Amino acid sequence: MLKPLGDRIVIEIVEQEEKTASGIVLPDSAKEKPQEGRVVAVGSGRVSDKGEKIAMEVSQGDHIIYSKFAGTEVKYEGKEYLVLRESDVLAVVQ
Amino acid sequence: MLKPLGDRIVIEIVEQEEKTASGIVLPDSAKEKPQEGRVVAVGSGRVSDKGEKIAMEVSQGDHIIYSKFAGTEVKYEGKEYLVLRESDVLAVVQ
Amino acid sequence: MLKPLGDRIVIEIVEQEEKTASGIVLPDSAKEKPQEGRVVAVGSGRVSDKGEKIAMEVSQGDHIIYSKFAGTEVKYEGKEYLVLRESDVLAVVQ
Amino acid sequence: MLKPLGDRIVIEIVEQEEKTASGIVLPDSAKEKPQEGRVVAVGSGRVSDKGEKIAMEVSQGDHIIYSKFAGTEVKYEGKEYLVLRESDVLAVVQ
Amino acid sequence: MLKPLGDRIVIEIVEQEEKTASGIVLPDSAKEKPQEGRVVAVGSGRVSDKGEKIAMEVSQGDHIIYSKFAGTEVKYEGKEYLVLRESDVLAVVQ
Amino acid sequence: MLKPLGDRIVIEIVEQEEKTASGIVLPDSAKEKPQEGRVVAVGSGRVSDKGEKIAMEVSQGDHIIYSKFAGTEVKYEGKEYLVLRESDVLAVVQ
Amino acid sequence: MLKPLGDRIVIEIVEQEEKTASGIVLPDSAKEKPQEGRVVAVGSGRVSDKGEKIAMEVSQGDHIIYSKFAGTEVKYEGKEYLVLRESDVLAVVQ
Repeated sequence: MLKPLGDRIVIEIVEQEEKTASGIVLPDSAKEKPQEGRVVAVGSGRVSDKGEKIAMEVSQGDHIIYSKFAGTEVKYEGKEYLVLRESDVLAVVQ
Repeated sequence: MLKPLGDRIVIEIVEQEEKTASGIVLPDSAKEKPQEGRVVAVGSGRVSDKGEKIAMEVSQGDHIIYSKFAGTEVKYEGKEYLVLRESDVLAVVQ
Repeated sequence: MLKPLGDRIVIEIVEQEEKTASGIVLPDSAKEKPQEGRVVAVGSGRVSDKGEKIAMEVSQGDHIIYSKFAGTEVKYEGKEYLVLRESDVLAVVQ
Repeated sequence: MLKPLGDRIVIEIVEQEEKTASGIVLPDSAKEKPQEGRVVAVGSGRVSDKGEKIAMEVSQGDHIIYSKFAGTEVKYEGKEYLVLRESDVLAVVQ
Repeated sequence: MLKPLGDRIVIEIVEQEEKTASGIVLPDSAKEKPQEGRVVAVGSGRVSDKGEKIAMEVSQGDHIIYSKFAGTEVKYEGKEYLVLRESDVLAVVQ
Repeated sequence: MLKPLGDRIVIEIVEQEEKTASGIVLPDSAKEKPQEGRVVAVGSGRVSDKGEKIAMEVSQGDHIIYSKFAGTEVKYEGKEYLVLRESDVLAVVQ
Repeated sequence: MLKPLGDRIVIEIVEQEEKTASGIVLPDSAKEKPQEGRVVAVGSGRVSDKGEKIAMEVSQGDHIIYSKFAGTEVKYEGKEYLVLRESDVLAVVQ
């Protein structure tokens, strides 16, 4: 299992083909395009200046959209993941 | 539903044609031009360094003007939205 | 009405022709030239790290001078306004 | 009267010809050269992240030296002034 | 022994050949590729602005993945190590 | 007298010829070379976010070494001085 | 004696020839190479935003490794020293 540090999360990328099902389609535009993912692991949160952990807003299993160019790719036990900071998550699909 | 994270909001873009009705017209100028939108979802607010949520000033349903080049476009269930940070909102039209 | 967010204000630009009356004339110089405006709406102030609003120094009706290249132009109900941050206000003319 | 905002001050520039009298002469050097001024108005001070005003060190009437390229020129009731931040003041001549 | 300062850690680099065993393989991509290491020494943590040590999340013996271009190489008693900041650690492999 | 503001100090530059006497000689190197000075006036210190003055470490009369390219030159009553920030002081010679 | 200010330290550089003895050898690599030194003087520490000194982790006599391009060279009473910030120290050799 990958345990992300601080305010990082590990996600599985949700491929373009699955997007129609979830109802999210990316428009054609010159703007930065977000992508979708499913959260598989969540860090324990960043530490405030008072030394206290700040709880994460994102939970394991969440379906999220995130900034396209964010994160670092990792392959673990044959599957590809992306390690993101929570601040790269735009919204949770509910 | 899209639930934005932190101090982000999700808006529907108010098109140029609707602008005459609301009374806001953008001047011809070399300056950055704001655009209008209607808030459809609001994040729970950013967390201060003391670990406390800072309440959002913008509410669901607000008619806002925002910086033109801000935000990330998302299409969700066939409609286009924009995910902005509250700090990209210039003013609320009341 | 336009309600600016955070530490922003909305001003009416005071045109160059009106400047002689108020007694402020801009010198010919290569430096950044300030301009004058009258405050028509004031935000509720920025939020401190303790989550408290910090009161604005500028009030509705104030005659201010501000940095020339600051702000975003908005036309609302046929009139032009400028949305500024309070930090772009140099001084109040009293 | 001009009332500067935050940690800003308004000064009258002390011309080069008056410098011999006050005893300060600028050396020939490639370094940034300071200039002299007399403080005519003082802001109420910047607000800390805790929401408290931080008192100004400079007072009305002080003879100061400041960084040459700092500030914004303003003409008010026929006289030229400079609006500076207190942090651009190097020293007070006592 | 090398005792890293602040929020730094000392790691042994886990070579590419060992990666198949641990199950992590790096994909071919233009993105920044993480690498693996094993933690051999941990600093006492960074000091907050309040003067308190903030505990490290990483422990001696942890198998980590980290940003490829992070850190400084050191050879000590014939072995190569890398000194990283904890913030360069993406995740712990558990 | 020159009274520096905040965390600034005023120093007399100690000339190169005097350096042999004090025992400090600058090596030939491509690195930034420090210079020596004697402190003639000390500001009251920077103000913390809590609004309290932070005491200066440097005192009037101290023999210091400082970063060569730091500070602003001032001539006052016929003598040359340099206005520095305390953070540009590397060490005190005791 | 040189008394460094704030979070600075003064070190004697440990030459390359001495490195075999201490067991640290720098690898051939394009990465930034650390160097070794022995601490001869330690500042009293940086001051937190609360106005309190933050204790130094490095002590006089410590054998340290530091970032190669950090610091300022000083010659004092015929010997060469380097003035570093504590944050440029990677690790203490114990």
